[in-house]
Amino acid sequence: MTELSEAMRVDFAAGVARSALAGPTGDFAGWLADCRARFHTRVEPVPLDRLDGWSVHPETGDIGHHSGKFFTVRGLDVEVAGAPVPRWSQPIISQPEIGILGILVREFDGVPHLLMQAKVEPGNVNGVQLSPTVQATRSNYTSVHGGKAVPYLDYFRDTGRHTVLADVRQSEQGAWFHRKRNRNMVVLVDEPVEVLDGFCWLTLAQVHQLLRLDDLVNMDTRTVLCCLPFSGAGLAERYPGVDGFRADLVHALDEGAATAHTMGEVLSWITEARTRHDVRVREIPLNEVTDWRWTDGRISHDTGLFFDVVGVGVTAAGREVGRWHQPMLRPRGQGLAAFLVRQVDGVPHVLMHARVEPGYFDVVELAPTVQCTPDTYDKLPAEARPEFLDEVLAADPSRILFDAVHSEEGGRFMHARTRYVVLSSDADVAADHPDYRWLAPHQLATLLRHSHYLNVQARSVLACLHSLVTPEGTP
Amino acid sequence: MTELSEAMRVDFAAGVARSALAGPTGDFAGWLADCRARFHTRVEPVPLDRLDGWSVHPETGDIGHHSGKFFTVRGLDVEVAGAPVPRWSQPIISQPEIGILGILVREFDGVPHLLMQAKVEPGNVNGVQLSPTVQATRSNYTSVHGGKAVPYLDYFRDTGRHTVLADVRQSEQGAWFHRKRNRNMVVLVDEPVEVLDGFCWLTLAQVHQLLRLDDLVNMDTRTVLCCLPFSGAGLAERYPGVDGFRADLVHALDEGAATAHTMGEVLSWITEARTRHDVRVREIPLNEVTDWRWTDGRISHDTGLFFDVVGVGVTAAGREVGRWHQPMLRPRGQGLAAFLVRQVDGVPHVLMHARVEPGYFDVVELAPTVQCTPDTYDKLPAEARPEFLDEVLAADPSRILFDAVHSEEGGRFMHARTRYVVLSSDADVAADHPDYRWLAPHQLATLLRHSHYLNVQARSVLACLHSLVTPEGTP
Repeated sequence: MTELSEAMRVDFAAGVARSALAGPTGDFAGWLADCRARFHTRVEPVPLDRLDGWSVHPETGDIGHHSGKFFTVRGLDVEVAGAPVPRWSQPIISQPEIGILGILVREFDGVPHLLMQAKVEPGNVNGVQLSPTVQATRSNYTSVHGGKAVPYLDYFRDTGRHTVLADVRQSEQGAWFHRKRNRNMVVLVDEPVEVLDGFCWLTLAQVHQLLRLDDLVNMDTRTVLCCLPFSGAGLAERYPGVDGFRADLVHALDEGAATAHTMGEVLSWITEARTRHDVRVREIPLNEVTDWRWTDGRISHDTGLFFDVVGVGVTAAGREVGRWHQPMLRPRGQGLAAFLVRQVDGVPHVLMHARVEPGYFDVVELAPTVQCTPDTYDKLPAEARPEFLDEVLAADPSRILFDAVHSEEGGRFMHARTRYVVLSSDADVAADHPDYRWLAPHQLATLLRHSHYLNVQARSVLACLHSLVTPEGTP
Repeated sequence: MTELSEAMRVDFAAGVARSALAGPTGDFAGWLADCRARFHTRVEPVPLDRLDGWSVHPETGDIGHHSGKFFTVRGLDVEVAGAPVPRWSQPIISQPEIGILGILVREFDGVPHLLMQAKVEPGNVNGVQLSPTVQATRSNYTSVHGGKAVPYLDYFRDTGRHTVLADVRQSEQGAWFHRKRNRNMVVLVDEPVEVLDGFCWLTLAQVHQLLRLDDLVNMDTRTVLCCLPFSGAGLAERYPGVDGFRADLVHALDEGAATAHTMGEVLSWITEARTRHDVRVREIPLNEVTDWRWTDGRISHDTGLFFDVVGVGVTAAGREVGRWHQPMLRPRGQGLAAFLVRQVDGVPHVLMHARVEPGYFDVVELAPTVQCTPDTYDKLPAEARPEFLDEVLAADPSRILFDAVHSEEGGRFMHARTRYVVLSSDADVAADHPDYRWLAPHQLATLLRHSHYLNVQARSVLACLHSLVTPEGTP
């Protein structure tokens, strides 16, 4: 495998900077409009017990595909010692395979471009969104099932002639998936690449500007994006003419910038959190979950909160043609994921939350400062409200650095939307608070070289935060 | 929590150097002889189905304690797709709790000393061995069961006034334990510490010299030791007057030393290995394992290979007094764990093996170049022999840099001994070999700041390799 030396890797931060500051190129709007005109899906509700190709197991109630492929909807029994709700059960998507989410990068005139894909997925609220070059399940990439070849997959399966910029397994929603992880990869190629229908080279500046629009840059893109080597040394000179918060942010991505806590402290805090929390999780038959019920061919919680498991029939037209049925998870209410940002020693820091979710591979991951579905708390006593939620909801617009609504994975989740916010704040927490720590963005970049430290919501907000190095504009 | 700054952390490598080069202090030999005279255990065989306090479950055959505490002997069903033996089952020790292994460090006249404990454990071949300051199970440290207080535990539970030098969860034997992990901690204190009976302050030089003796520095000490911050910048001046291989080793611990592969490459290799291997493991009732049988109150494999599960009755005298029964795992044959070491660009590198073991938390960990029980292969065809085994067994003594036999954990394993070898080698492997990579020792130190990268055998050999910075001598 060819790989950047550490010096070259850090140096690629210069490429990232060139790409993030690039001027407009190509007719992105025209390409997107064309894709939108040609690629679409029609989605209709279908009762869960009448999905073609899927069946409800007569004994367990589990919902699985006849082939044994894709995923299974099962039950999860969860015990979290000492938590406000110390035990519950719920439906969960069981999909233990590790897929690949990969973005191909190539330099044009010295400016790295990302090969993005216009992809329609049934759960999207608006049809086409921008996805990574490759979204492949393990079945896809091992060709176990002899399915249709995934375009560009070989660049990620055989990296020998290329340069791997990022390669790490990361978790997905721990409240909805049990131990779901994908391999997040960024591969730099130095050879001509055929651009297939539905694909387009974009600069990071373009992707960053698109991130400010609602429901366009999909979840898989956001999580891979944030693994790009944004941090480095001597970054200020890479971003000439940048000032204000943008300059502060560039400084905060510099590995030499001051930090509220050392990496040793941060790692020890994570070790302590992962040791302290006693979380016991086991998959159970779906018909053994309590407080959930089948009604009209879907599964809902008795309170009407959390999510429903629903069935859909999909008709896709365009590049990917087909008709299929599948179960999906449809959240109740819009999510919120917010970073509180505060200057510490002149360096913007992000308040990270050590969060337990039942589906995590390793007990606790670092989540955004606030991550919840706000509507849920309207029906609960005031003391149940998440910390810092009210600060985010009541924030003066002048303090909001980033604010957009994005979609979660459209292949599993139906109209799952989250408001992503980055908020300038004066909040503080005790330096030895068990659940919160202020981290500098370059520390988050260090953690992202390893698996399972940042959860998918944190990775999404971090991609949004990174996007602020790019000036506003029309891609 | 007080924590070293990164600069101070690196600077503590200077303390490590002072401690590793310290001259003899105190009457260690006298203290050890005194402990050996006073602390001992008597161990007698007891049939597994006649262990006081333990019972064989009438349906599952699992062997558990009446209290539900300690550990359970269960079965493990293992599938490793594509492996020479793609499916097997075996007995396994199930102990999912995370305990604490901690060494307390204090500077005397500027030289860090480690508070070591003389501890007898029933599985030891020779009674007393040197253990960390604290070996505590989760039941001990959460006081759930109101047991006897563990001395010095508070230094590791409440680190607020102290300095955490290392704090990371690491796996133990993946062939014998299912998902067993301990939290490895090193805590630096700056206040007087009472030295209780059976405890003694030792310099790193003393511990390093003791590592060259057989069966004295126990497994828990070795794994915590190797997490000390050995690597740093500008190390050469920290080790004045050091020459030959010792000087090369100091250079290899310097974070600026050249490497055969970048950390990005190493991390991508690990990600690839953890994604490529399809390992499915589930606990099953002990009486469902195949090819194992109960004979004369113990459980053995039909071939007589691998290990036996045996019962013992223990009578302990000295500081820890008591009588108890327990099951133990007794390996057949002595193990071998060896590092092949080779100069790459003038820097000694270690050949690491990406190894699958069924009990690992995360599929693959980095193991020594060779890790096996050599006798096993006398009964198997030549092509089954592990790579590099013959090079180690036939090595000319002039190439052997380290060679000692150490005991594995004496609380669970009966007379489990492993020969630890560091061997200078001319071996080479393809740069893109899927299973092997040459890593510089400072890269191993970087990986050791995170959980689950190096297996327990690799951590033991690494502690032995580190010990070579200390001149030979009598502690």
